[in-house]
Amino acid sequence: MDRARLTELLEAVRAGECSIDAGLERLRALPFEDMGFAKLDHHRALRTGFPEVVLGEGKRPEQVLAIAERLAATDATVLVTRLVPEVGEQLVAAIDGFQYHPVPRLAVRPGRMPAGATRGTVLVLSAGTADLPVAEEAAIVAEAMGNPVARIYDVGVSGLHRLLDHKEQLWGASVLIVVAGMEGALPSVVGGLVHCPVIAVPTSVGYGASMHGLAALLGMLNTCAAGVVVVNIDNGFGAAAAASRINRAEP
Amino acid sequence: MDRARLTELLEAVRAGECSIDAGLERLRALPFEDMGFAKLDHHRALRTGFPEVVLGEGKRPEQVLAIAERLAATDATVLVTRLVPEVGEQLVAAIDGFQYHPVPRLAVRPGRMPAGATRGTVLVLSAGTADLPVAEEAAIVAEAMGNPVARIYDVGVSGLHRLLDHKEQLWGASVLIVVAGMEGALPSVVGGLVHCPVIAVPTSVGYGASMHGLAALLGMLNTCAAGVVVVNIDNGFGAAAAASRINRAEP
Amino acid sequence: MDRARLTELLEAVRAGECSIDAGLERLRALPFEDMGFAKLDHHRALRTGFPEVVLGEGKRPEQVLAIAERLAATDATVLVTRLVPEVGEQLVAAIDGFQYHPVPRLAVRPGRMPAGATRGTVLVLSAGTADLPVAEEAAIVAEAMGNPVARIYDVGVSGLHRLLDHKEQLWGASVLIVVAGMEGALPSVVGGLVHCPVIAVPTSVGYGASMHGLAALLGMLNTCAAGVVVVNIDNGFGAAAAASRINRAEP
Amino acid sequence: MDRARLTELLEAVRAGECSIDAGLERLRALPFEDMGFAKLDHHRALRTGFPEVVLGEGKRPEQVLAIAERLAATDATVLVTRLVPEVGEQLVAAIDGFQYHPVPRLAVRPGRMPAGATRGTVLVLSAGTADLPVAEEAAIVAEAMGNPVARIYDVGVSGLHRLLDHKEQLWGASVLIVVAGMEGALPSVVGGLVHCPVIAVPTSVGYGASMHGLAALLGMLNTCAAGVVVVNIDNGFGAAAAASRINRAEP
Amino acid sequence: MDRARLTELLEAVRAGECSIDAGLERLRALPFEDMGFAKLDHHRALRTGFPEVVLGEGKRPEQVLAIAERLAATDATVLVTRLVPEVGEQLVAAIDGFQYHPVPRLAVRPGRMPAGATRGTVLVLSAGTADLPVAEEAAIVAEAMGNPVARIYDVGVSGLHRLLDHKEQLWGASVLIVVAGMEGALPSVVGGLVHCPVIAVPTSVGYGASMHGLAALLGMLNTCAAGVVVVNIDNGFGAAAAASRINRAEP
Amino acid sequence: MDRARLTELLEAVRAGECSIDAGLERLRALPFEDMGFAKLDHHRALRTGFPEVVLGEGKRPEQVLAIAERLAATDATVLVTRLVPEVGEQLVAAIDGFQYHPVPRLAVRPGRMPAGATRGTVLVLSAGTADLPVAEEAAIVAEAMGNPVARIYDVGVSGLHRLLDHKEQLWGASVLIVVAGMEGALPSVVGGLVHCPVIAVPTSVGYGASMHGLAALLGMLNTCAAGVVVVNIDNGFGAAAAASRINRAEP
Amino acid sequence: MDRARLTELLEAVRAGECSIDAGLERLRALPFEDMGFAKLDHHRALRTGFPEVVLGEGKRPEQVLAIAERLAATDATVLVTRLVPEVGEQLVAAIDGFQYHPVPRLAVRPGRMPAGATRGTVLVLSAGTADLPVAEEAAIVAEAMGNPVARIYDVGVSGLHRLLDHKEQLWGASVLIVVAGMEGALPSVVGGLVHCPVIAVPTSVGYGASMHGLAALLGMLNTCAAGVVVVNIDNGFGAAAAASRINRAEP
Amino acid sequence: MDRARLTELLEAVRAGECSIDAGLERLRALPFEDMGFAKLDHHRALRTGFPEVVLGEGKRPEQVLAIAERLAATDATVLVTRLVPEVGEQLVAAIDGFQYHPVPRLAVRPGRMPAGATRGTVLVLSAGTADLPVAEEAAIVAEAMGNPVARIYDVGVSGLHRLLDHKEQLWGASVLIVVAGMEGALPSVVGGLVHCPVIAVPTSVGYGASMHGLAALLGMLNTCAAGVVVVNIDNGFGAAAAASRINRAEP
Repeated sequence: MDRARLTELLEAVRAGECSIDAGLERLRALPFEDMGFAKLDHHRALRTGFPEVVLGEGKRPEQVLAIAERLAATDATVLVTRLVPEVGEQLVAAIDGFQYHPVPRLAVRPGRMPAGATRGTVLVLSAGTADLPVAEEAAIVAEAMGNPVARIYDVGVSGLHRLLDHKEQLWGASVLIVVAGMEGALPSVVGGLVHCPVIAVPTSVGYGASMHGLAALLGMLNTCAAGVVVVNIDNGFGAAAAASRINRAEP
Repeated sequence: MDRARLTELLEAVRAGECSIDAGLERLRALPFEDMGFAKLDHHRALRTGFPEVVLGEGKRPEQVLAIAERLAATDATVLVTRLVPEVGEQLVAAIDGFQYHPVPRLAVRPGRMPAGATRGTVLVLSAGTADLPVAEEAAIVAEAMGNPVARIYDVGVSGLHRLLDHKEQLWGASVLIVVAGMEGALPSVVGGLVHCPVIAVPTSVGYGASMHGLAALLGMLNTCAAGVVVVNIDNGFGAAAAASRINRAEP
Repeated sequence: MDRARLTELLEAVRAGECSIDAGLERLRALPFEDMGFAKLDHHRALRTGFPEVVLGEGKRPEQVLAIAERLAATDATVLVTRLVPEVGEQLVAAIDGFQYHPVPRLAVRPGRMPAGATRGTVLVLSAGTADLPVAEEAAIVAEAMGNPVARIYDVGVSGLHRLLDHKEQLWGASVLIVVAGMEGALPSVVGGLVHCPVIAVPTSVGYGASMHGLAALLGMLNTCAAGVVVVNIDNGFGAAAAASRINRAEP
Repeated sequence: MDRARLTELLEAVRAGECSIDAGLERLRALPFEDMGFAKLDHHRALRTGFPEVVLGEGKRPEQVLAIAERLAATDATVLVTRLVPEVGEQLVAAIDGFQYHPVPRLAVRPGRMPAGATRGTVLVLSAGTADLPVAEEAAIVAEAMGNPVARIYDVGVSGLHRLLDHKEQLWGASVLIVVAGMEGALPSVVGGLVHCPVIAVPTSVGYGASMHGLAALLGMLNTCAAGVVVVNIDNGFGAAAAASRINRAEP
Repeated sequence: MDRARLTELLEAVRAGECSIDAGLERLRALPFEDMGFAKLDHHRALRTGFPEVVLGEGKRPEQVLAIAERLAATDATVLVTRLVPEVGEQLVAAIDGFQYHPVPRLAVRPGRMPAGATRGTVLVLSAGTADLPVAEEAAIVAEAMGNPVARIYDVGVSGLHRLLDHKEQLWGASVLIVVAGMEGALPSVVGGLVHCPVIAVPTSVGYGASMHGLAALLGMLNTCAAGVVVVNIDNGFGAAAAASRINRAEP
Repeated sequence: MDRARLTELLEAVRAGECSIDAGLERLRALPFEDMGFAKLDHHRALRTGFPEVVLGEGKRPEQVLAIAERLAATDATVLVTRLVPEVGEQLVAAIDGFQYHPVPRLAVRPGRMPAGATRGTVLVLSAGTADLPVAEEAAIVAEAMGNPVARIYDVGVSGLHRLLDHKEQLWGASVLIVVAGMEGALPSVVGGLVHCPVIAVPTSVGYGASMHGLAALLGMLNTCAAGVVVVNIDNGFGAAAAASRINRAEP
Repeated sequence: MDRARLTELLEAVRAGECSIDAGLERLRALPFEDMGFAKLDHHRALRTGFPEVVLGEGKRPEQVLAIAERLAATDATVLVTRLVPEVGEQLVAAIDGFQYHPVPRLAVRPGRMPAGATRGTVLVLSAGTADLPVAEEAAIVAEAMGNPVARIYDVGVSGLHRLLDHKEQLWGASVLIVVAGMEGALPSVVGGLVHCPVIAVPTSVGYGASMHGLAALLGMLNTCAAGVVVVNIDNGFGAAAAASRINRAEP
Repeated sequence: MDRARLTELLEAVRAGECSIDAGLERLRALPFEDMGFAKLDHHRALRTGFPEVVLGEGKRPEQVLAIAERLAATDATVLVTRLVPEVGEQLVAAIDGFQYHPVPRLAVRPGRMPAGATRGTVLVLSAGTADLPVAEEAAIVAEAMGNPVARIYDVGVSGLHRLLDHKEQLWGASVLIVVAGMEGALPSVVGGLVHCPVIAVPTSVGYGASMHGLAALLGMLNTCAAGVVVVNIDNGFGAAAAASRINRAEP
């Protein structure tokens, strides 16, 4: 595209339809993004089907609504993460097409799905039921990004057979998102059982020396299972985004 | 396969060739791993071409040599990571086929490569020249795991054009490994420029408030670029292992 | 000025209009500040146009009102920072001339501006919209201190072109205040693009491993861009004060 | 016993064999320990067979030798922990009966064993080979305290079947000492497999975000396996002492 | 038991009552737990009398009620820990047999007690009255697990005689649970007075440099009393579970 | 004194007025504290005039009232620290003689003053007005312990002359309590100006990198002024208690 | 310049001397830096007289020498920071014009000075003599960047008069660099005495709770003096670079 | 005194012996220190007998020798703390009168003792033998500052009777310095046994979660014994200086 615009400009200069000075001006004015990188941004959602994402936390209700409204005018999928129920309900009431998921505190307005194929299923595991908000954030976001998603919850390492019962599912997935709080040991165990990429998500579930998820985070970073990668505490969204990058059929 | 072994056993029992007690004994004796998971382990390197890996750090020279010798008896690739030069040289002298890379302090004994195809090139970026030991560990390990590898070094964010000059290469890779110390900002910038998976590797390069790489680690975990994943400080090996999981053609 | 007062005193002593004892008493009573350092303090605002500043946080409403009333009796600009809306509204209702800015939770009562010229424009950048409260605190305080102020918001490093589109403005400023939460990478990128002083302000925007802004703070302290300086987390006021020190025409 | 001594004293006073002043003096002189608590100390090793223990670290060679010599004069077992090889060798050369174990850096001089029976076997597990120094400190100290000890090493959670192969041994032990570095997940998995007490020992094995064993320590403290207890990083000695307290036949 | 089931299966195969395929299917279907480990789990409470435990914190009221209802259908003792009073009262109102203890925020529904004998009394000590919620959680949970329990509260180390007055009780217990906040010194003092196992429980009682119990936790981990073990901050439940493991008559 | 009691007892035994068994019983019953240490405790307030102190924080209103009532029955001064206003008011309403100080959240019931003389004045300094709650806790508690107390507030180091104006008062005090938040520099400056003991009290005043007073605490511990001592963050009570220990005329 | 190159290109296209395709190719090939930003980099030292800087730490001697040799081929000033004496001496021996300063471990090869004027003197203060290496790094680097530099050392806050004796110098500087370890209080005191910009440099001088300079760093970030800015621990170089940005006559 | 100088000046002005301008000049020139504070410094050691103190750590041998030589020219006592043996021996060889104590790494050159009386004995306690270097630094420095000093070592809290045996000495001291590493519990126990001031000194003795003395420091700051004060980790010197301030007979 920018090749097209540059060609057009150069032809206009050659044809004398555009003065040198005007050409210079237009070249200066060529937004950087037209150099290639910027497509990634302004038209990202349109082109790739990647959702538009708004971090709900820390924004005022009117800000969330205004941004969501503007985004809903496109046909992209729109996600609002970390949104308290009160604002979530306002959003659902105010703008057509939004659904609010109270457990992961996530609002979704489904839009055009990405065109490209996926490599397989994104499988989301959680160690405990208290990890569900994060696991569901990951699962719903991964779905909104066009991935087939499966879930296995409550398979913490202190009851190994619960995990081992699902080995077929573990082996059948193309990417694993493994969500765990407290000591965060599940990704290490899972990472030793599968060959596919494993994204570990520490959660803030726990108390005392859990230090709001820091213990789980450190555990996952120090995993003895080669090739497990980690995202921020409670960052189900980030795990889903990473899984989507991995799961795209064309790299 | 274990289906085959179980079938054979049950048929022998039915045929009376195997007594109930002997059958019980054999069922008990079926190593757990034969239930499926264990293949992953004992024959992992042989089957998958995934290298055998030894952590050199903290082992005594004689331990390293003994383990390396045993592994070198197979046709798997053997890696010894975090190996001080003195022991590296002993290794090269003692066992045929080992090469020692002093910058990443890594010994490699190339072996049978994995059979399966890869999805594309693993591209390793580093922010500074001081990050080279980690970047090279990632690059050489990724190569030893059968991936085509490219490198772009010294493209830290305080001199953006150095990075932006390589956008074609960035866009052509199938997985990025982005190595940075100090503030660890490079993965955030890169993550906004590409669609493919980005594995961030913090390094312990820096001083004072870098706290041996903690600043870079925290920065990467808090990246504003959706879908960047992180491994432990200085863990070039882990990044390469994760990249290999992602880069396998069949998930 | 104190030279004048001291001259007057000595002349009165010489003239016998003032006894030795009375002179001693007056010399004792000469506030320490008249020895030179103190001008900085009691008459600071009057002389320099530097505003009187009250930290609203942690003070009781009646304390805030009482202090603000006393300061409003001078013709200095008065700032009350980190003031919750309820007290802000009481302040506006109780004392003429106060404006309350809810986003940065800042009350301002404009007064006499400093006489001296400034070197140029203070440019405030923010990485995300969630950083606005801090960025606006910096911007409004800098204005209240007599600086021309410009703003560029939401130019985080994961969408580089947004920043690069403003290079003329970056190059035209005399001081930059760069506000960012999460990984805090923006000052490193900006610091590599400009020659002027760059003041980095980490914010507490983020969650999990952001540790209330510590990740951004550490990132900024470890910046690879030479000459970037840092203030406390969320300290927009401090950044503006530093920028004003820098931006005064006479050093 | 002290009842007996007090009776004797009072009777002597009544009989006039002991003056009031002498009685007072003897009452004052009754060493506190004779009130009961002190027996625990001065005669502890003699009575209980619990070894005399010296922390070698941070002591000068001559101090270690002097203390060890004094203790070796009794018939108690003597342990010197965290002793560098050079001093270990001096000790072996200087005092009869000492053995030096270089891996756990532990010197032992076997003495009289405690009289009481034990409840069963203390089983020491380690996640990796690098954890051996700590695991061996635990094992040898537990033996020196009179416990039957078994060892299963290198059964980290990323290769589960290695652990599961030993379930009979796990179930047969009376106390488990589980030693692990890096993410420290092994005690959580083990704690879910057995009913007996589990003592978790984090080690400083790892690098980067392991923070010298802090990650493993935090992981173990946050274990989801109910009833796992923890000792200090690298504290194999403490784990053995706790195991011995638990394993005594009479509580 | 699983031997029995396997025997039965093999005999059916031999007898032709079960086809090879059906046999395979049943072997596959044999839940992993039937390999031995799983008994520990599904039938754990029934077999051992160990209570079913639900972590109330972080669960929604309806989740707590639903889980508690399901568990109350068995004859196991049911515990719900860290349960806020409002939900505790709902629980008592909704399900027969539940008692709510407001101090430790613990709901208990007594059920079948474990069959096996205990070794003796579990003695719970606390340093201050503010530690009572944690001490009571430990005491009530230990009782619910079938242990005789005694309590000595408010015997902090700054008033030693309060502790020393109870030496008989200290010496008579089979396991000690020692609960302390602030500097957490009590377990060190107690550990030097007794021979039996000592489980230290740090609490979050304190302020400032107590850092929510971290000071007490670190103090306990660094105890100079050999053989003291530690659980997570405020983890009265975990201490009771560990004490129960230790206090079972048959190891 | 206990010498007297023991003498009396022995004489009664000798005189036959007290049987051996009764003597034994009385010796046993001699509370440990009568061995000397315990006087310190039970009769501490009576003897020394040191107040009875209750930590209000974390106690339920009814607990506070019950304890306060019991203590108010003596003639000792009673202090309840860290008491929220609601309970403070209940206390004042319920028990005669209590005064509630809302700024330091402190309830005081004046009682008998200690008999001994003091060495001089305890001078309390604070860096900012936000430090007042802690400074007032220190000042009022020191008064309640019988010390003459003077106060100099709002003399932070960024306006040195404010501090230097009070040099006479600084030099005239026998103990200084120096209260400061944020960077906590005041004790270092003051410690260099005086010869008397200086007790530094960090406060949690500040935000961001103040980390709830940790920055001030660390600053004070690292003071370059020889002989400054430190107490816990916000621990005005502890500082007053230490000052009272120092300020007693007879050591 | 790039305007010139673009003009030339467009004129060539208009003149038909350059085909559209060739023009496109040249436009693509225009290095990003020609868009303006890059001048900052490749020609930075030449244009601005800003020195070329090499971080010596963590580089191998041969790397340092190679890089230094390449840079010494230009006429820019060359700095090598954090260079151990051994390599410093090699550098001096190998390349003409290098001086090695052992205290700040800094090698300097003076080159062309920047053309532009400075606003005044950069004044470097240090709290203690142990801070000299950092203070000297700042001073020498600031000189190498073309600034007049003055020094006042050993004026820590526990001996205020030492600092106050230099008030004229403090008032006469255009930028202050204030270097302090331990509690890092000096910048707060100085910041209250002057109007000019103050750059605080924490040093790792201290022990124990200084935590390698973290205490000083936190203290400086929490300064109560408005407008003090901070750089990384021991980062004398960064402070000098910031001072140079501020001290340039044209902003 | 400064009153005298000012009087003299005013009288000279009145008498016309001093012109207004000269008077002004002299008033300006009145060194700040003449206002009183500075005497504290320049003549501190001479006047008070307080030793001159040099921190040996981090200084080069030649610096230490030069400073020590200059100080030895006065008749003040000179202390050099944290001095490695090599330099200590050089010092003893080079300058008459120095003694070097290897355990606390302390050099002392006894000089004129302070004139004033002390209140009593400074008693130094240590928990373990590994704490001796710090305890001896405190003891020797306190002696050098003119205090009678007594020592009780190796009375850690896990063997209470060792401490309780010395209650007479505890009660007879005027100030206690209590040195402990690991969990740092000794000051809490001691603080409950005595009325006099207690200065707690954490040491870096320990390993793992001791975090170089941080655990002991936090424990001491959180002591439940009212009125215990704390100094930096391993800061025996600071404790002695504080004890000397407290122990001076005239406040």
